[in-house]
Amino acid sequence: MQIVSSERAHGGTQHVCRHAASSTGTDMVFSVFVPPHAQGETLPVVWFLSGLSCTHANVTEKGEYRRACAELGLVFVAPDTSPRGAAVPDDPDGAFDLGLGAGFYLDATRAPFATHYKMRRYVVDELPGVVAADFPIDPSRQSIMGHSMGGHGALTIGLSYPERFRAVSAFAPITAPTQVPWGRKAFDAYLGPEGPAWRAHDAVALIEDGRRLPALLVDQGGADPFLDQQLKPELLRQACDAAGIPLDLRLHPGYAHGYGFVSTFMAGQLAWHRSRLG
Amino acid sequence: MQIVSSERAHGGTQHVCRHAASSTGTDMVFSVFVPPHAQGETLPVVWFLSGLSCTHANVTEKGEYRRACAELGLVFVAPDTSPRGAAVPDDPDGAFDLGLGAGFYLDATRAPFATHYKMRRYVVDELPGVVAADFPIDPSRQSIMGHSMGGHGALTIGLSYPERFRAVSAFAPITAPTQVPWGRKAFDAYLGPEGPAWRAHDAVALIEDGRRLPALLVDQGGADPFLDQQLKPELLRQACDAAGIPLDLRLHPGYAHGYGFVSTFMAGQLAWHRSRLG
Repeated sequence: MQIVSSERAHGGTQHVCRHAASSTGTDMVFSVFVPPHAQGETLPVVWFLSGLSCTHANVTEKGEYRRACAELGLVFVAPDTSPRGAAVPDDPDGAFDLGLGAGFYLDATRAPFATHYKMRRYVVDELPGVVAADFPIDPSRQSIMGHSMGGHGALTIGLSYPERFRAVSAFAPITAPTQVPWGRKAFDAYLGPEGPAWRAHDAVALIEDGRRLPALLVDQGGADPFLDQQLKPELLRQACDAAGIPLDLRLHPGYAHGYGFVSTFMAGQLAWHRSRLG
Repeated sequence: MQIVSSERAHGGTQHVCRHAASSTGTDMVFSVFVPPHAQGETLPVVWFLSGLSCTHANVTEKGEYRRACAELGLVFVAPDTSPRGAAVPDDPDGAFDLGLGAGFYLDATRAPFATHYKMRRYVVDELPGVVAADFPIDPSRQSIMGHSMGGHGALTIGLSYPERFRAVSAFAPITAPTQVPWGRKAFDAYLGPEGPAWRAHDAVALIEDGRRLPALLVDQGGADPFLDQQLKPELLRQACDAAGIPLDLRLHPGYAHGYGFVSTFMAGQLAWHRSRLG
């Protein structure tokens, strides 16, 4: 693992790192903020999954998480959203919602994406070990959050590994990708025709199929242009209500889909995570 | 004036605006954050001048000022650092420290820069009226801050218009441009050979020549790679001590020159401004 940059901020250190990832067969870049801490101390870690078209850099630059993480003693890790590089295929039309920047946190099984698009394996199986080797994280205290497509990632991974993540939350998540254009396009390209593999990567379907979480927090902007067609928090509301999962769905009038929205509610989500991380 | 974008954040609204500027003879882009406020209320305004190579976007994305401005009730305006456009000459070698992104907050008098590089006139004489026409600022409560080259801008403009700015502060400012490579290169290109015009744009020289301020706040990173050769806070220390200007020079070990540093100390500078803005 190579440290690309390290910069002191809010009493901690913001690192950007690059490493050769075996899961994707590419170099991958991620950022990790380490708050001030005592030597030898290990800290709870929050995984942040970003949205369509993002790299690690968007939340790192615009997320406004460092002050809160420094105050709360949280390590904050932000991976990229897809494999990248000359060998990695993109959407044939170069669209932002498939291919580069649009890995959807699943392992593709369909050509030409199956070779490199293994973002589930990367985020769940590979990156934690890479981070733990060089940074002071406590593997028994992990939580996960994400934004938009990354909100989908946080919800589906959180539901799939409830023993690992003590808190799961999202900003404006794609709640039911199998029911909306972004998700259907991506799942068809990555996984093939609709079937059981789709439901394993859909938060609403996972809940319908019996997955459970002790609590869930979602912030959603009321002026989000993707609310009705792509995000559909009402489907998550219905699924959680039917399953008895306490969902705190916070609707914020006037807020849109970007980092003005995310940065405003970041400190609140981090405090909620901290209270569940022991 | 055209609103390029508006986004709700931290209870206020972050705007990006474009207008045809007569001082520079170009279109200019700036950002303005308006905190939550009562209808009809006018608010104190902080002008933030950015550093070499920046546009309005750097501090707007990475400055982490919105939460503090919302809490303190401050409008925050961030102009560009130079004129831009096909007709605007750049450094002949494309260097980052002259020409585009490097206006140094002065009015150039030397060809080829004299036609468009009128950043002093733009920031002091033109932009305030443009902002006041569309946003709720109180012209009797203004303050100014800046970073690096923009710290030079804030100090020199603050010293030149003490009746207008109730608070003046800087992050890692170029304190004495006539004595350092960045400043000497730019002043020679914009103003011609060294002479009285140079001293009018050098904070240390302005203080030596009799300009005064009631107080001055400077944050400076101790691991800033430009500290010794370009910034020289010790010259500002000496000039302020000799002139009896109370300078609060806060040295922060381990902090570098970028927005990790700026964002960490932004809320502190804004609170200091607010306490002086009535």
